[in-house]
This record gives sequence, structure tokens and C-alpha cells, in this order.
Amino acid sequence: MTAKFIVIEGLEGSGKSTAMKICADTLARANIDYITTREPGGTPVAEQLRTIVKHAEKESISTQTELLLMYAARSQLLENVIRPALASGQWVLGDRHDLSSQAYQGGGRQISCEVMNFLSQYVLAGTRPDLTVYLDIEPALGLARARGRGELDRIEREDLSFFERTRARYLELAEQDERIVVIGASQAIEKVHQDIEQTLCEFIARR
Amino acid sequence: MTAKFIVIEGLEGSGKSTAMKICADTLARANIDYITTREPGGTPVAEQLRTIVKHAEKESISTQTELLLMYAARSQLLENVIRPALASGQWVLGDRHDLSSQAYQGGGRQISCEVMNFLSQYVLAGTRPDLTVYLDIEPALGLARARGRGELDRIEREDLSFFERTRARYLELAEQDERIVVIGASQAIEKVHQDIEQTLCEFIARR
Repeated sequence: MTAKFIVIEGLEGSGKSTAMKICADTLARANIDYITTREPGGTPVAEQLRTIVKHAEKESISTQTELLLMYAARSQLLENVIRPALASGQWVLGDRHDLSSQAYQGGGRQISCEVMNFLSQYVLAGTRPDLTVYLDIEPALGLARARGRGELDRIEREDLSFFERTRARYLELAEQDERIVVIGASQAIEKVHQDIEQTLCEFIARR
Repeated sequence: MTAKFIVIEGLEGSGKSTAMKICADTLARANIDYITTREPGGTPVAEQLRTIVKHAEKESISTQTELLLMYAARSQLLENVIRPALASGQWVLGDRHDLSSQAYQGGGRQISCEVMNFLSQYVLAGTRPDLTVYLDIEPALGLARARGRGELDRIEREDLSFFERTRARYLELAEQDERIVVIGASQAIEKVHQDIEQTLCEFIARR
């Protein structure tokens, strides 16, 4: 059995943390050996880049710098964590991956598809998630939830239109890729959790 | 008079620091308002990236991550320092710039020209040095000098063949661009200094 790469995606307040927990529990019950990652981050160097990109306060970070830092962190995580784990037979369960850059930097920041595709192909070099669970939520609702949890980081403080463009890109890309499953995250919470668990159980059964 | 962008380039031990000082003195004597920069670095965020790329010890940095970090730092410096200075009429005197990436990552690390050209065009976006002084030295001689000064950083600890490829790429690119002046840095030190000063004086006179 080949190890699989599963990713949870969604806007702030879409319930990614709970989804990660449900997926982790489901993998554990199926006796699957797995590791979890988060992006940007997941290695000592990538975590340093995460801090810079999310919390730089003294200096404005250009859109271009943000994009390059996201891919530098992803490159480091793929090379030092994700590929070695998959090669050794461990599944990888990721909190965000390349689809976040496509949605936030490509959609939200409106960076050209040419640049997005070039960097994505260069850095991913063929390593792609086997299953992505995208938790879809209206940005206003998600942001209200995220704000309720406490302070927002540099990117989370963008205006609503930024998150509307981000969501639109998520939905557009999900439509083009059958490995991306969209789950409505503004449904009743029990239904959301049930959908996540069912999606993962079906994926495990089919593998 | 349009402000100019001047860059000093060369291998470790080629005398870049002294060249920076000679150029700074020459600009000051000509009553030219200028700032100095260094790469990677030159802004708070770019300096953090410099520390990561040059001194990461606990985790191996992939060639790809190194390249993306170099361009993230350059993007930040161009956007927040170099372009604003040039726009306000200040000259910029830089210790390394894009040619270093072309030589070290493109030549030394053998990253493809397609990748190097894409990133360079994306990040520079038309901002290019008006004059680059490349101090050419045999790698063995330069490294011996650099070692004499103290500890070498992560990149400076590469083997001789890495620096031979880096030097070859410097020379190849200098041949293709008349804005790059090659100065033999293994000549008698007085002659090197005289050549640097004369190159800059001629550039200032012609501007």
C-alpha cells in the first residue's frame, strides 16, 4: 500500500483544526501510520519563515516577497519532511499546502497564473496531495469566527474582498480537480464533522 | 541627473569590502548622494533571511529553498530600499545583487537557466544595475584569504569545484553585458584599488 498525502484547506474560521483532529483520529482507527504538518511551517527553518510572513510588523512585506517565502517554506517542508515520510510509507496529513498559495496569493493577491504555475511546478516537482478536503465557508462568517478566537495575523487582517477572491479561487480549482472534495463548513457542526469523516473513510477504503 | 545603481561582485576573498569603501569615497568626493546595501540583506526582514540562508546549522537547506530565499530577500530590498532610493535621486551602491544568484545558484549550484531567468525577471522587473564591478580572483586564492579572516559560513564551506563553476558563470555573464566591468583582483593591491577608482570615476564622468 502506497502512503498517501492528505490536505485540509479552507479560509480562516472554516474549522481546519477540528478537521485535522477528525482526520487524525480516523487514520489512527484504521491503523495507518501518519505524520501531520502545517504550512507555512513544519520544519525549524519553515517555522521561522512562517513567523516572518505572518507576523512581520516593523516592515511591510511585498506581495512578491510573501509569495517567495511561502514557496521557500514549502520547498523546505517537501524536501525534509513530506517526501521522506511518504517514501518510508507514512501517510502525511497537512494543514494547508499548495492550494492555499493558489487561493490566497493567486486569487486574493491576484498574482498571475503564469507566476503561480511556474513556482508551483518548480517546487512541487510532481509531489501532489492524493486527497484535499476543502472546507467552504462564506468569508464574513469565517472571519467572525476567527476574530472570536483572538487576534488576527497580518494576512487575516486583509479586507473582505481579499477573502472573497480567495474563496472564489478555491472553488474554481476544486471544480477542476477531482482529488479536491468540497465540504460546506457553514452546515450544522455535526453534519460537517460527519462529512469529513465519511470522505476520509471512503478514501481509505478505496486506496 | 538620474540616480545610478552600482554593484560590487566577486567571490569570497576578492576584496569586495575594500572596493565598497573605495567606491563610497569616490561618490562622496563627487558630491553624489548615495546609500549602500548588501545582499542577501539590507532590510530587517531580508537580514533575517540572510541569517537563515548563511547560518542554518540544525537543518539542511535545499538548493531550491536557498534560491527562493535569496530572491525573497532581493524582492524585499528592491521594493523597500533600492527603488525608493533611486526614485528620490539617491545613488545605490550594493555589495552583491542579482549577478551573485546567477553565479552561485545558477553556476555553482547548477540550477537551470530557465528557473534563473524566470525568477530574475519576475523579481527585478526591469530594475537593473547601471554598473557592476566584478572582482575576479582564482577561487583557491580567494578562499585562502577568506579563511585567513575567520570562520566560513554555510555557502563558503562548499568545495573548490563549486567556486570554480561560480567564477566561470561570473566571467561568462560579464562577457555578455557591457555594464559589467571585470577587474583582476589578484593583481598588486594598489593596482586593484586604482582600477576600481578609475572605473568608477569614468562612469561618473560619463553619466
